[in-house]
Amino acid sequence: MFLKNTWYVACRQEEIEGKPLGRKICNESIAFYRQADGTPAAVEDFCPHRGAPLSLGFVSDDKLACGYHGLEMGCDGKVVAMPGQRVRGFPCIKSYPVVSRHGFVWVWIGDREQADPALIPDLHWANHPEWAYGGGYYYVRADYRLMIDNLMDLTHETYVHATSIGQKEIDETPCTTKVDGDHVTTSRLMNDLPEAPPFWKMALRGHGLPDDQRVDRWQICHYTPPTHVMIEVGVALAGHGGYEAPADRKVSSIVVDFITPETETSHHYFWGMARNFRPQDTSLTAAIREGQGKVFGEDLEMLERQQANLNAWPERKLLMLNIDAGGVQSRRIIDRLLAHEAAARAGATEAEQ
Amino acid sequence: MFLKNTWYVACRQEEIEGKPLGRKICNESIAFYRQADGTPAAVEDFCPHRGAPLSLGFVSDDKLACGYHGLEMGCDGKVVAMPGQRVRGFPCIKSYPVVSRHGFVWVWIGDREQADPALIPDLHWANHPEWAYGGGYYYVRADYRLMIDNLMDLTHETYVHATSIGQKEIDETPCTTKVDGDHVTTSRLMNDLPEAPPFWKMALRGHGLPDDQRVDRWQICHYTPPTHVMIEVGVALAGHGGYEAPADRKVSSIVVDFITPETETSHHYFWGMARNFRPQDTSLTAAIREGQGKVFGEDLEMLERQQANLNAWPERKLLMLNIDAGGVQSRRIIDRLLAHEAAARAGATEAEQ
Amino acid sequence: MFLKNTWYVACRQEEIEGKPLGRKICNESIAFYRQADGTPAAVEDFCPHRGAPLSLGFVSDDKLACGYHGLEMGCDGKVVAMPGQRVRGFPCIKSYPVVSRHGFVWVWIGDREQADPALIPDLHWANHPEWAYGGGYYYVRADYRLMIDNLMDLTHETYVHATSIGQKEIDETPCTTKVDGDHVTTSRLMNDLPEAPPFWKMALRGHGLPDDQRVDRWQICHYTPPTHVMIEVGVALAGHGGYEAPADRKVSSIVVDFITPETETSHHYFWGMARNFRPQDTSLTAAIREGQGKVFGEDLEMLERQQANLNAWPERKLLMLNIDAGGVQSRRIIDRLLAHEAAARAGATEAEQ
Repeated sequence: MFLKNTWYVACRQEEIEGKPLGRKICNESIAFYRQADGTPAAVEDFCPHRGAPLSLGFVSDDKLACGYHGLEMGCDGKVVAMPGQRVRGFPCIKSYPVVSRHGFVWVWIGDREQADPALIPDLHWANHPEWAYGGGYYYVRADYRLMIDNLMDLTHETYVHATSIGQKEIDETPCTTKVDGDHVTTSRLMNDLPEAPPFWKMALRGHGLPDDQRVDRWQICHYTPPTHVMIEVGVALAGHGGYEAPADRKVSSIVVDFITPETETSHHYFWGMARNFRPQDTSLTAAIREGQGKVFGEDLEMLERQQANLNAWPERKLLMLNIDAGGVQSRRIIDRLLAHEAAARAGATEAEQ
Repeated sequence: MFLKNTWYVACRQEEIEGKPLGRKICNESIAFYRQADGTPAAVEDFCPHRGAPLSLGFVSDDKLACGYHGLEMGCDGKVVAMPGQRVRGFPCIKSYPVVSRHGFVWVWIGDREQADPALIPDLHWANHPEWAYGGGYYYVRADYRLMIDNLMDLTHETYVHATSIGQKEIDETPCTTKVDGDHVTTSRLMNDLPEAPPFWKMALRGHGLPDDQRVDRWQICHYTPPTHVMIEVGVALAGHGGYEAPADRKVSSIVVDFITPETETSHHYFWGMARNFRPQDTSLTAAIREGQGKVFGEDLEMLERQQANLNAWPERKLLMLNIDAGGVQSRRIIDRLLAHEAAARAGATEAEQ
Repeated sequence: MFLKNTWYVACRQEEIEGKPLGRKICNESIAFYRQADGTPAAVEDFCPHRGAPLSLGFVSDDKLACGYHGLEMGCDGKVVAMPGQRVRGFPCIKSYPVVSRHGFVWVWIGDREQADPALIPDLHWANHPEWAYGGGYYYVRADYRLMIDNLMDLTHETYVHATSIGQKEIDETPCTTKVDGDHVTTSRLMNDLPEAPPFWKMALRGHGLPDDQRVDRWQICHYTPPTHVMIEVGVALAGHGGYEAPADRKVSSIVVDFITPETETSHHYFWGMARNFRPQDTSLTAAIREGQGKVFGEDLEMLERQQANLNAWPERKLLMLNIDAGGVQSRRIIDRLLAHEAAARAGATEAEQ
C-alpha cells in the first residue's frame, strides 16, 4: 500500500542527464527524461507501437524517441510523430507530473489535478551558499516502511554501525517521540559525553573548535509524509546548551533520506547529508559522501534479511517498544492518509454515478 | 503456441561433436547426439532408470550412455543395455526424427509419421562452392514471434543498429509486403543513395567495384513457416537496375535466421550470413560473423525488455502499422497453421473413437 | 517429508566459532551459536522485536544478541534483556536441542522431550588416536533422498567419477543388499583385481605394503536413519581374505556422509573420510580432503539436474533395479518411520482431546 497523491523523489537530476532513465515507482514502470530547457518529463515506460520500453530510447528535440522504431512520444503521453506514419489515432500512454527541485526529480503518481508543486517540501539547505549537500542512491529489497522504522530509531547505530557512527551512549539514552499533525519527531539528547566520535571530532576541528573536550550530542529524527526522514545531528561543547548552543559552540548537519516505494517489498533509497560547516570544501563533501555510503550500506543486508523473515513468517506480530515509537507513529500517519485516499476515491466514484 | 508438425533447427552440427547436447524445444527437453557415421539422434533428456538427464552422458557405439549409471539408450528411445541388468521391460522414452542438413540438425517435434525430410527447406547456398556461410547462436528470453516481427521489419536498424548497419534512408523508404500462400515478402528498395554503408563498401571493393559511387540498396525479407526468415540484402552501382542489376554491377548476400521456440517466452536464435563474394576468404567469413554477432546482439536487450513489458501489461494491444505488415502477415500464417494442426488432431481423435 | 524426531548434523563445530550461523533445516530457519564453555545453542532465526535474523548478530555472555537493536536472546528462546527495555512479556521463540559431538553440532527438530543425546550415533573413529578425519560441506539443490540413493549405489562411480575413483570392475561386480531392522547394507566385493586404483596404491605404500600386486577391494555401504551413510572401503593384497584379511595385509577407511534436509528439494551434505592409516599425517589428511572434495563435487550437477528433471516430469515412475536396492530399502525405512511419527502425533492429539 502506497500513498499516491504525493510527491516522491524519482531520481537525482544527474540520473537523467544525456539519456532517459527507466524506474518503477509504486508498481508503475516509468521512463524519465530531461527536455532541452532542463524540465523533466515522465511517461509510462511502454511504447504504444510494439511495447518496447521507451527508456531504452533517446531524447530528440524534447520528445522521447523509442529506440526500436523511432516513435516519438511527447511529454504528455501523446504520440507526436513516427517516421513514415500518420500518428493520429495512436493510443496515448500515461504521463506523470514531474518537477525538478532541490537537486532531485519529483514525481506524482496519483491524480494529476492534485499535483501542486507547492507541496514539495521546502529544503532550506538546498541551494544555500552556507550549506553543502552530498548523497547517493541504494536499491533495497525491503518494504519502504522498514527503512522508515530504521531511520526513526537510531538505536540500531550501536549495533549495525558499531565500527563507524555507533556509540554505547546512543543505546543508553532514552529517546522521546512526539507527534504534531503529520510530523513525527524522535529526539535523543546525549549530554556531557566524554568525547565526540571521530566524524564529529573532524567537524569540530574544521569549525575551529577543540576536539578533545566533553560534548553534548543530539539526534532529532523528523518524519513527514509520505516517506521523508530528515535527521538533525550534531555536537556542542558540553555545557553550552547542546542543541540550543550558540552557533560558535557547536557543529551540526542534516541527514537527508528520501524513500520511494518500488513494489510492496522493495524501494529506492536516496540518502545524503547537508552540512553548514566548510560548505566550500568539495573534498570534504566527497569524503563524507563516501563514508556515509559505507555506513548506510551496512543497513541493506539487515533490512533485506528482515524482509525475507517477515515474508517467511507472515503471521507473526512485531513488538512496538519505546524505541520503535518513531516508526510506529510514522506508520500510523501513513495508514491514516491511505484511508483518506481510499475514502476520496470512493467518494469520487460515488459522485460519478 | 508452437507449430509442431514441422522441422526446426535444433543446433548447429558442431554443437554435437564429441558430446551430447541438452536443449529444450517447444517445451520438450531433448538430448541430441551424433552417431559414428554422423547421423544425428534425439531422445527425451530423461533416463528411464533414475531420471538423470541423458545429455550429461556420453556416446558409446552409437548409443547414448547415461552418465549416472551407464544405461545405454538407443536412438529410437528403447533401452539397449545396462551393466549387470536385463533391460527387457524397461520403459521407452520418446525419440525424435532428426536430420542433419545444411550444417544444422533439424528436429521434428510433432507426429513422426509426417516427418518427411523433403520438407526441410532447400538452401541453395549451402554446400555451394560459390557461397560461404558463417553464423552463430543466441539464447533469447522472448517469444519467438517477437524475433520474427523484428526481422520482417528492418526499420529498427535505424535505431537499434544506429552505429553499425543503420541508415536514415531505411527509415525514410516505405516497404512493401506481399503474401503468396505461406510465403511473406517485405521489400525495401532504396534507390540512388549517395553512398553505400561501410559493410557494403568493403564488399564492393572485394568484388572489384568502386566504393565511392552512388548505389541502389535493397532488403527483401522472406518469411516461411514455421519460423525461418531469409533476407536478401545487397547494393548495386546506381542506375544498373538495383536488385535486377547484372552480377558484375552488384554485390549481395543472404541474412539467414532460424528461430526455434524453447518456451512461450524464450527461443533459440540461429543467425548467419551466406554470401557469394570472396567465398574462399575465410578470414572475411570470420570478420563478418564477428560483426554480425555484435549487431544481432544489439537486438537481444530490446526484445527481452519488450517481452517483460508485454508480460507486465498483458491486456494492451499493440499497433499494426505498415512497417509491421511483415510480422503481422507471418503471424497470420502461423495462426492458420496452428488451427490446421489443432483441427487435424481433433479429427484424428474422432477417427479413433 | 522429513523425519523430525531424530538427530541431524546441523554444522561442523568450526562453523560456529566466533560468530553465529544461520541455516535452514527441515524447513525451519535456525540460528546456531556457541556459548563460552563450548556448548552449542540453537533458536529460531527470528528476533521477536522486529523480525531480524538473529544469526546476523553476535554472542555476548552466552546470549545471542540481535545485530539490529541489541535484544539478547537466551538459549532457551526466552528474551533475557534489551537495552532500555523491560523484557517480561516479550514473546518467546522456539529453541532446539543441540549437542556437540564427534566434531559436529547435532540438532533435534521434533519433540524436545524425545531428544535423547544417547541416540546420537556412536562413531568409533571420532577422537580416536589411531584414526584421522577430514571432511567438508556442500549445499545441494536436490531432495536428500537422491543423495542417499547416490551413496547406497556406488556403481555411479564408474560414470560420474570415471577419471578419479571409478573403475570398470565396480560396474561389473554385482552388489548385495541386506536389511537388518533399520540398518541397510549394500556390499560389493571385488576380488583379485589386477591392481589397486591410485588412491589405494598410495595407502598401501603408506602402510608399508607393495602397490603393484593384485588386490581384493570392497565397498560396504551402511545406511542408518535418518540419513547417515557410512561406507567401509579398502583393499587387501589378493588372497588374504579381502575384507577379513589381517590388519597387516590391508588398508581401509570409512567414507562418512551426513545428509541434512533443508527443504523438500535441497539439502546440506557433510562428507568426509575417516582413516586408520598414517593418522598423524596432517598433510595427507588435507590431501585426501581436497581430493574427496573434488570427487564429491562431481555428483552435485548430476543430482541437481536429476532433481530438475523429476520436477519437470513429476508423473514418471523411476526404476528400482538391483543396484538401486540400497536406496530403495533405505527409503522404505524412512517411509516406515515417517508413518510411525505421524501415528504418534495423531495419538498425542487424540490423547489431548
